[in-house]
Amino acid sequence: MGMQRTPLLMSRLIERGAALSPDTEVVTATETGTRRQTNRETLRRAHRLAHALDNADIGIGDRVGVFMWNGSRHLETYGALAGMGAVVHNLNVRLPPKDIEYIVNHARSKLIIADADILGLLEPLAGRLPTVEKVVVAVEEGFEDWSTGLPGAIDYEDFIAPWPDRFEWPPLSETAPLGLCYTSGTTGDPKGVEYEHRSQYLHTMAMCVTDAMALSATDTVCGIVPMFHVMGWGMPWATLMLGCKQVLPHRFTNPQRLARLMADEGVTLATGVPTIWQGVMESCKDHPEAYDLSLLSRIVSGGSAVPPSLARWYWEALGVEMIQEWGMTETSPLATFSRRVPRTATPPSDTAPTEYLTEVAKAGQALPGLEVEVFDKDFNPLPHDGQSTGEIMVRGPWVCAEYYRNPQPGNFHGDWLITGDVGKIDRDECLILSDRSKDLVRSGGEWISSVDLENHILALAGVAKACVVAQPHPKWEQRPVALIVVEEGASVGKTQVIAHCLDRFAKWQLPDDVLRVESIPLTSTGKMDKKAVRADLSAAGYLLPDLRTPGSRQCVLSPGAGSA
Amino acid sequence: MGMQRTPLLMSRLIERGAALSPDTEVVTATETGTRRQTNRETLRRAHRLAHALDNADIGIGDRVGVFMWNGSRHLETYGALAGMGAVVHNLNVRLPPKDIEYIVNHARSKLIIADADILGLLEPLAGRLPTVEKVVVAVEEGFEDWSTGLPGAIDYEDFIAPWPDRFEWPPLSETAPLGLCYTSGTTGDPKGVEYEHRSQYLHTMAMCVTDAMALSATDTVCGIVPMFHVMGWGMPWATLMLGCKQVLPHRFTNPQRLARLMADEGVTLATGVPTIWQGVMESCKDHPEAYDLSLLSRIVSGGSAVPPSLARWYWEALGVEMIQEWGMTETSPLATFSRRVPRTATPPSDTAPTEYLTEVAKAGQALPGLEVEVFDKDFNPLPHDGQSTGEIMVRGPWVCAEYYRNPQPGNFHGDWLITGDVGKIDRDECLILSDRSKDLVRSGGEWISSVDLENHILALAGVAKACVVAQPHPKWEQRPVALIVVEEGASVGKTQVIAHCLDRFAKWQLPDDVLRVESIPLTSTGKMDKKAVRADLSAAGYLLPDLRTPGSRQCVLSPGAGSA
Repeated sequence: MGMQRTPLLMSRLIERGAALSPDTEVVTATETGTRRQTNRETLRRAHRLAHALDNADIGIGDRVGVFMWNGSRHLETYGALAGMGAVVHNLNVRLPPKDIEYIVNHARSKLIIADADILGLLEPLAGRLPTVEKVVVAVEEGFEDWSTGLPGAIDYEDFIAPWPDRFEWPPLSETAPLGLCYTSGTTGDPKGVEYEHRSQYLHTMAMCVTDAMALSATDTVCGIVPMFHVMGWGMPWATLMLGCKQVLPHRFTNPQRLARLMADEGVTLATGVPTIWQGVMESCKDHPEAYDLSLLSRIVSGGSAVPPSLARWYWEALGVEMIQEWGMTETSPLATFSRRVPRTATPPSDTAPTEYLTEVAKAGQALPGLEVEVFDKDFNPLPHDGQSTGEIMVRGPWVCAEYYRNPQPGNFHGDWLITGDVGKIDRDECLILSDRSKDLVRSGGEWISSVDLENHILALAGVAKACVVAQPHPKWEQRPVALIVVEEGASVGKTQVIAHCLDRFAKWQLPDDVLRVESIPLTSTGKMDKKAVRADLSAAGYLLPDLRTPGSRQCVLSPGAGSA
Repeated sequence: MGMQRTPLLMSRLIERGAALSPDTEVVTATETGTRRQTNRETLRRAHRLAHALDNADIGIGDRVGVFMWNGSRHLETYGALAGMGAVVHNLNVRLPPKDIEYIVNHARSKLIIADADILGLLEPLAGRLPTVEKVVVAVEEGFEDWSTGLPGAIDYEDFIAPWPDRFEWPPLSETAPLGLCYTSGTTGDPKGVEYEHRSQYLHTMAMCVTDAMALSATDTVCGIVPMFHVMGWGMPWATLMLGCKQVLPHRFTNPQRLARLMADEGVTLATGVPTIWQGVMESCKDHPEAYDLSLLSRIVSGGSAVPPSLARWYWEALGVEMIQEWGMTETSPLATFSRRVPRTATPPSDTAPTEYLTEVAKAGQALPGLEVEVFDKDFNPLPHDGQSTGEIMVRGPWVCAEYYRNPQPGNFHGDWLITGDVGKIDRDECLILSDRSKDLVRSGGEWISSVDLENHILALAGVAKACVVAQPHPKWEQRPVALIVVEEGASVGKTQVIAHCLDRFAKWQLPDDVLRVESIPLTSTGKMDKKAVRADLSAAGYLLPDLRTPGSRQCVLSPGAGSA
């Protein structure tokens, strides 16, 4: 044995930031302002929480459901559970009660830590969660008078108060479980992915390489991506390791409040889905002088494709570099990052460089250690020519090997995870997403990318949001339909959208219809919910224009919506 | 099993750079200019070399001695051996023949790959290396007519010519050996450290985190640190993984040539010991307009302490950030990096910020995953107060567990490696080196840091180099003596040096003597060779001033040297 066989445990990483930067702050947004504590205090409180959990009979490998917004207590929960060898079971607060019930019972979580303001969402489950013995309630300003029918409820502060601030983290196998996250469940029951210490340790190291997001201890990080879903893209672990200043928005994720928080706290790096960045952009446009975001240098956007028009605005208006990442619950979740383009040494240019706009529109290159390939239907790898489109498959040390208590071998091919996403890889090894398989439009034996259409439509002045979905067609199988949200005062209609799309798309790729709507429904993780859009169209009896009989009434999707 | 158990093999990292940046160049300095090939060609040639080695009966775990300067063929050797599971056995070309003989025989290397220009250094060993069956000779311009008495000699190009450019890297255990490097051997026989795939994989990931040196695929890297020693600080692995442009100086390491090479190739990041940077600085001062180093942004310096005056010059004259690293053969070798200090958004200031100069003088913070502590003589950990000085000890997944075929348990305490370096840790978790244990001056029961004295003396105008060593004293045990190299035309003497030192040091810490010398001898890895300095003083019959009898002659160290 030449070298030490130190196990790759998260407990070896999460103490580091507080040691290096003990006085750096963790800031949590509250009703009236912010709540602040230091990294040292956060770590000490995590140790006390570990004692309290240990005393509540939570041991190595036990699942603890965490039903919380991004805040300092959520961060403490990550630290305590990782250190003591218990499992952080992410509970998405936006899921319907029946899904939460399924997930908690499937995971057999023994305890739930929940924010008081969303305790009501769990109330319908009182008496339906047989494994849950205790609920620890984290109370923020304005929710001191909580009550619940859930068993063994106790205030978070009362729970940790009696305990000392040093817990001896136990030795563990590096493949011991660390986390459990269920996929949003587009079809069938939600499926759980069980993260391990080794996998998340390697994921944490990989996401901290310069070429991912250049994350540094000198950053002030605002993780808007919920920590209740897919480990908040790994940001909590990375920031605990590095000792960054952290700014956590809690439940205050409306765009104005986010912009204000980022400005007040001097945020340099923020993470979130494109819909968040659309909202912040609109707030900034509405109040041009209100938010000083001059310290903001990078935005990491993922979960769905980054519209180039959005990236252009952030570069040109704020001097901010947008970085697209791609990944999924099954990949811990970070897999690829759009390629770094060296910025000129001078301050950001007024016009975003073409090279940058090209790169940020791609999902990008795989993090070191991970392999991404595109395969045809017979599982033959396709060439990396920027043309050949197929099923995206992934393997590597932070990719799941099976689902929790529900292996689902059909989702794997050998050691490759079949992602359900469709795309191509170019000569620079950049992954370019076409779509989720189920969101592609299959027309006449060809595929039409709804993402490409959406991005192009978004670049049309006056269009605030665009969503393209497939609609059934007896001859072509499917045809695309575009839904658009139009900016106030703008008058964009089908004619303009189609004319604009003709600049780039072939006639057969154009949407058959363009519908003006007031809003696009979002999923629990903030992406456009195309499943809901398709269901709405179906419920409204929507028909493609060439299938309508003369005089038939057009569907109405939502108040004020209609064919543009 | 929740997550994939992908073994951490270097073969999974070293192919990445060539895939991401196939057309990016590997540039090797030659007698008359440079030799250039792409990353893609480098990787293909590595695969061909693997075939040739396989055909020469080199298998998994076999040691291959590599006796080469930094160049593209050396890089190919790293790639081939790592991929095929053989062992890169670093042979330091500056070691005396008897050490090379010991090392090759102790490692039982089966084959040696050597540069033709230094083949002569191996000739005395012909017939004395029983395990070596073959010598592969890499020929650069001007050395085409090589010959050797070593067995089975073949030209590198002839060796790889017949083979295809795709070798199927075999599956390996992640703890399979990857490299073997012997410590320079200050006392006793050289000791070998056997690196493993897992340890170097984790080391590679850690050195690529932003807070180490912000290494990126967008960098043009000049690794001046020899790849024949301690894996060239891991730079070859990191650059293969990232796909950086690489500039390799081969045997042309005189300061003028290095400055020219870095300027011509647009180097952004370079690595080397402080003596290299002293030399490059002097070249730049001598020829102020000769070298355009405007693209150079970071210098990583290690192996011995970074004098703050040097860091100040690079910042103020070139706008270059110097980063100190500390490590050793036993730590793969990178362990700590001086703390990042956020640079102002504006171009480098004319005056280096105090905070930066303070940080760069420290060895810095441990890379994530590694633990560094300071212990007293009874192995009690000392507080991190910036005051308590003791033995530096290290543990973690890229720290050696024992020496190769020579365990030396006395160098370990539990799983801690006893480094032989002495230092302290401050409240920011920054390691501050005092000295190698053997280089500290023990005077009257107290320790005097030779490094602190040297750094202070170097800040005196007119002093080009400074070296402080201990000399025996019957009353105080030891007393410090300073050797200085004075810049041409400057007249610095003992009086000025002592007066200057009084600004900062107590009287008992002042050197008892200041000797002007023409040069300071260097070790095989480019550090000041204090062992040689002490031996020279002893051989010259040097006595401390208060031990001299009246009228005794002062020692002369080298032509022109003498008491200043």
